Amino acid sequence: MRHPEMDAAAQIGIALLGVGVVGGGVATILAERAAEYARRVGRPLVLRHLLVRDPDKPRPASVDRALLTTDPEEIFADPHVQIVIEVMGGEHPALEYITRAITSGRHVVTANKEVMAKHGSEVLTLAQRHGVVVMYEASVGGGIPLIAPLKRDLLANELIEARAIINGTTNYILTRMAYEGADFAEALRAAQELGYAEADPTADVEAFDAVYKLAILASLAFRTEVRPEQIYREGITKLTARDFRYATELGYAIKLLAIGRRRPEGIEARVHPALIPLSQPLAKVDGVFNAVQLEGDLLGTVLFQGRGAGSMPTTSAVVADLIDVARALAQGKTEPFPWLRDGPCPVLPMDGVRTRYYVRVQVADRAGVLAKITRVLGERHGISIASIIQKETDEAAQTAELVIMTHEAVEAAVQQAVREMADLDVVAGVGNVVRVEG
Amino acid sequence: MRHPEMDAAAQIGIALLGVGVVGGGVATILAERAAEYARRVGRPLVLRHLLVRDPDKPRPASVDRALLTTDPEEIFADPHVQIVIEVMGGEHPALEYITRAITSGRHVVTANKEVMAKHGSEVLTLAQRHGVVVMYEASVGGGIPLIAPLKRDLLANELIEARAIINGTTNYILTRMAYEGADFAEALRAAQELGYAEADPTADVEAFDAVYKLAILASLAFRTEVRPEQIYREGITKLTARDFRYATELGYAIKLLAIGRRRPEGIEARVHPALIPLSQPLAKVDGVFNAVQLEGDLLGTVLFQGRGAGSMPTTSAVVADLIDVARALAQGKTEPFPWLRDGPCPVLPMDGVRTRYYVRVQVADRAGVLAKITRVLGERHGISIASIIQKETDEAAQTAELVIMTHEAVEAAVQQAVREMADLDVVAGVGNVVRVEG
Repeated sequence: MRHPEMDAAAQIGIALLGVGVVGGGVATILAERAAEYARRVGRPLVLRHLLVRDPDKPRPASVDRALLTTDPEEIFADPHVQIVIEVMGGEHPALEYITRAITSGRHVVTANKEVMAKHGSEVLTLAQRHGVVVMYEASVGGGIPLIAPLKRDLLANELIEARAIINGTTNYILTRMAYEGADFAEALRAAQELGYAEADPTADVEAFDAVYKLAILASLAFRTEVRPEQIYREGITKLTARDFRYATELGYAIKLLAIGRRRPEGIEARVHPALIPLSQPLAKVDGVFNAVQLEGDLLGTVLFQGRGAGSMPTTSAVVADLIDVARALAQGKTEPFPWLRDGPCPVLPMDGVRTRYYVRVQVADRAGVLAKITRVLGERHGISIASIIQKETDEAAQTAELVIMTHEAVEAAVQQAVREMADLDVVAGVGNVVRVEG
Repeated sequence: MRHPEMDAAAQIGIALLGVGVVGGGVATILAERAAEYARRVGRPLVLRHLLVRDPDKPRPASVDRALLTTDPEEIFADPHVQIVIEVMGGEHPALEYITRAITSGRHVVTANKEVMAKHGSEVLTLAQRHGVVVMYEASVGGGIPLIAPLKRDLLANELIEARAIINGTTNYILTRMAYEGADFAEALRAAQELGYAEADPTADVEAFDAVYKLAILASLAFRTEVRPEQIYREGITKLTARDFRYATELGYAIKLLAIGRRRPEGIEARVHPALIPLSQPLAKVDGVFNAVQLEGDLLGTVLFQGRGAGSMPTTSAVVADLIDVARALAQGKTEPFPWLRDGPCPVLPMDGVRTRYYVRVQVADRAGVLAKITRVLGERHGISIASIIQKETDEAAQTAELVIMTHEAVEAAVQQAVREMADLDVVAGVGNVVRVEG
């Protein structure tokens, strides 16, 4: 019989923080595929501790209850833990545990978008100082490889743009609104019933989740720090069934788009609903799917598409990172990817963004209305109009609905023009303003 | 002044074999971005030799003519060459140079699909024995990251299927046939005029190129050896404008599809035209674009899409591999990815493949025809018919055209049934048989 300490030295010891939807998947797969992964790594991967809040909660059968602990000290005191997998989610205490793991010389694999978006720069700097790696493929796009391609495969390129559908919940809701003519509230309810949206859907529908993911992607793509609070954020709650009907008629889909773009003067970073021409690949990404389109100066455009969430896709990304780190450890290497950053680069204010706009507006159904509206847009604010279409007339209220599509214009000018338009006596109300991309 | 030998030791010395479309791009980019890449690698990358056949041929201005040589011995005699980039293409002498580089201890980056498809297994085994790496991201899908994700990001998964549009030339031709009603010959001519197809288009239109790429992808995805000659191959030359018209009416696109699939009894590997439902992402991949859809058991389906060819996209992949190897060298590591293979696994014969079929057939325009045809398909060969639609009638010839869509059936049975159908007195000719996928 081999001495237990010798066995421990031949193994790669792992602690799992959090045994929820993702953690349960990771524990299950590591148990089921232990032999296969040992072969791929060159040494067995052994789960030594599972940190949970409630040890009495039911867990998948594959979870070894003897490994459950509520005490993080037990993990950090175990010298055989070489890799810490953090899948508890949320900012605290996940950040503190990640920091503790790093400073005590452990490598970290995390799926935590909030921690990496808000503290990625500090975490990665700290890891570099302590000679360990922090891997976070699972933090964006579930199982779709994004972080690794950005760190490796696209390295010959200067990245010009990232545009992405990176929140499955909102994409499901928008798809339902587009195909079923559902209103936002109805579509949200359907998503909640199917378990695609939470009881409190704020993080998704107000685009906080997408902002975290864009912060991570843009920081990596442009090799600088893009912080969540620097990203313009607009959710999907103001969209109506009518906007979808008009968009379809005009040849567009409506998606919640996360856009990062390198400009000569800095980085543009914004998340908001957008009209996308139906001919573009991103317009066809429906349901809970995610897709990220990257543009490199050599590569042109490359699109990655897949399931952006769920237990098994996320497990796929967590375990890929784990195998990568473990393989490096088994070969006596510790840093598969050095962390490259160019230093600070300004994130540009939303006011200066130039794009096209869709404006839906209720007006009095009488002569002279168009002249007043075009005067505000064109003469006062230099916004060139691509088309104005009268869509519906309400005979009783004596109002009509106009859909205005602009040529490229500056955000601040459009917002100011819309405010002035709303004050016109011939305007009953501005229905919605949606940016048009691509 | 530093001693030149010291400088050479601090640099990473590179030899480039081939300075054509891709090689010229690589040389140009390495010259233009020398400072940037040195920073990413940690040491300068220095081109020391460019192997060419004709030193007097015009080259891009960024190519240092003093480095041109026609003598491979010069390269292998230079102890400062640590990485050999092979972008000459073709089987010979590329294979011999790659072998020579490996046995003399150099790492290799290659874009050569023919060498990697036909000799990948020997080349990678040899490299492992000599402690060097052979990187070949550029051999499939141009700049789209495929090899690295298969080697790293999808490693937690068992891969179930790869299906791909991996030849830009044929996809351009098929797109043109679909949208313009062009016949094959016309569309080919257009592709040739635009430089998308070669004067001798055989390698593309007869699907040899796609077969090489599938051999590489399937070998990696299923961790076994899939040789090009084991892959069923059927080109696009028999497709007619009429097939596209009928496919569109039925809700399908026609694409040259490369399919690799893990079956309990072995690997299915085939390249042929296929009808794909218009709702599927691959049906929407048009023009010279490539797309690869991988299905993993954890991940579900993930799609990678981008430009599959061209100087700069391919350069992007070659330089990504180069930076990866160089970075490992700069850090004193030599094997970023160990080569994992499970051992032999049978590649299944085409005869046993089960799929659905589109059969276009000219018949006599008279009663009793359908009964005879359904007897051959159904009673004699057990092929269940999903639909038969009469598409056109030729009054003069007294013939009609039928489009038969089958349910899933076995390839051998369908081929035998089609032969028997052709012999029926009521059948004037079988127009085409195309498999239906997805």
